[in-house]
Amino acid sequence: MPREGQFVDTLTVIGVGLIGGSLAGALKERGAVGCVVGCGRSTENLEAAAQRGLIDRYTTDPIAAVAEADLVLLATPVNALIQTLPTLAKHVRPDAIITDAGSVKCEVINAARTTLGEIFERFVPGHPIAGREKSGSQAAVTDLFRDHWVVLTPLEDTDPTALALVRKMWEQVGSRVRLMDPASHDEILGMTSHLPHAVAYALVAQLGDQQRNDEYASMTAGGFLDITRVASSDPAMWRDIFLHNGETTADLIREHRKVLERLETLIREGNAEGLQEWFESAKSLRSSLENAKEHQRSNPK
Amino acid sequence: MPREGQFVDTLTVIGVGLIGGSLAGALKERGAVGCVVGCGRSTENLEAAAQRGLIDRYTTDPIAAVAEADLVLLATPVNALIQTLPTLAKHVRPDAIITDAGSVKCEVINAARTTLGEIFERFVPGHPIAGREKSGSQAAVTDLFRDHWVVLTPLEDTDPTALALVRKMWEQVGSRVRLMDPASHDEILGMTSHLPHAVAYALVAQLGDQQRNDEYASMTAGGFLDITRVASSDPAMWRDIFLHNGETTADLIREHRKVLERLETLIREGNAEGLQEWFESAKSLRSSLENAKEHQRSNPK
Repeated sequence: MPREGQFVDTLTVIGVGLIGGSLAGALKERGAVGCVVGCGRSTENLEAAAQRGLIDRYTTDPIAAVAEADLVLLATPVNALIQTLPTLAKHVRPDAIITDAGSVKCEVINAARTTLGEIFERFVPGHPIAGREKSGSQAAVTDLFRDHWVVLTPLEDTDPTALALVRKMWEQVGSRVRLMDPASHDEILGMTSHLPHAVAYALVAQLGDQQRNDEYASMTAGGFLDITRVASSDPAMWRDIFLHNGETTADLIREHRKVLERLETLIREGNAEGLQEWFESAKSLRSSLENAKEHQRSNPK
Repeated sequence: MPREGQFVDTLTVIGVGLIGGSLAGALKERGAVGCVVGCGRSTENLEAAAQRGLIDRYTTDPIAAVAEADLVLLATPVNALIQTLPTLAKHVRPDAIITDAGSVKCEVINAARTTLGEIFERFVPGHPIAGREKSGSQAAVTDLFRDHWVVLTPLEDTDPTALALVRKMWEQVGSRVRLMDPASHDEILGMTSHLPHAVAYALVAQLGDQQRNDEYASMTAGGFLDITRVASSDPAMWRDIFLHNGETTADLIREHRKVLERLETLIREGNAEGLQEWFESAKSLRSSLENAKEHQRSNPK
């Protein structure tokens, strides 16, 4: 039983990187959890997390890690997350609750439904919309989730008690929780996060193709470094996102190529009016996004 | 004759926006100029610039504005800049020096060569690689150019005295001056600045096409607002850049569409290894760019 002020006694975090480490640290900072067990492949990373006080103890063995957990958070890249599911199915306590922080929801849910069997109803799929371009437990910061959205995508058969506990966890660290169906999540995040990352990676790749990096490198002030900042994110994480939200992201990239083709045509035609309209409308839409974000910031829940 | 500490007596700035206003203000702050005359179409903007102390006096009449100038800086969007050249040709003092801050160099130089006649040798083409996503004299800040590159693209027939004076002007406000041939400038800036802006505008346009802005707008935390920040820049300025660096930017966009097509193919093939390689190589190239930039910052000239 959790003690007073604690929403859960033992939390196991599999994948103590930016997301897992930040959440564990934030919960411990608030005394919201009895004990955090960290699990991952790299002892060095786990040791660093323990030294920073993000976790209480750690093991590289997932079976040992989940044995006593009341709540298990899967916070690895999506592929590793899916590969961990069979271990969970066999070794978690029968009343344990499981949640994840994967950036893709449909394929994770499909895999969980197939693998987890009866425990599936206590699996609460989730995705914190927060991040930095740095990775590993060294990059963890305990205010990472404050005023950020966390999307939970419960299914019809998800246990309401499990959902309530996971919601409480995220609210404890200052997040705003929002429920969404998994397909909408994957489409919306595809457009607002996965596509922009694809584009940033493509810009850097194209610059690399120029074979004149030194000349170009020193001239990258004009927004290039800002625009491509996200291309410094964890490669394995992004590989998995594009693999597991594959059709959606591939379709969005195809659509983006068409949008760019329209822009290219306006330029080749020397269509001043068309370009002006395009840029004005983009500026105006972006201002409305910025205003919506400001409104959110100044109206905490 | 300029007084002690002043590199020039009367400077006329045509286009008192972010760039023109920031430069004028920075020079005045350092006592590097006797008098700054501002010129533009909007009395309101000029009055605001005068009240902020960025300029000493102003007029909306370019003929009056340039009559007494020792140095004229053209700091409007490129199209307006080219349209101002005939007035300069007729009305500047015979010993006046002219420079510009246009983001495109080849077409500006071609127009200047045709229009300016004998004065062309005292025209020093330039481009400060600095900016913000806000525009107008209200957005001007006097440290805008500190530690930023300014590219000057003098021609074979450019007067060395004129070049030296313009170089001195930029160095006074903390810039690093770099000489480049105009075609290289337009290619390099096409890749490092114009293409990224095109991509940002295209991302915003694509989000706008979704017709579900409210749902999408609140989820734009995942880097979208950062990546598209530059799409809030001045539409007229960017219209002119894509018109006047048209072939280069259109070719870069076509190339970018091909890079995206390669990425799309890797995703559709489910090519984990290919994606991993792609993202690792982009992360590594971007780190080297970031390091180069840090090296510049920590080694001021």
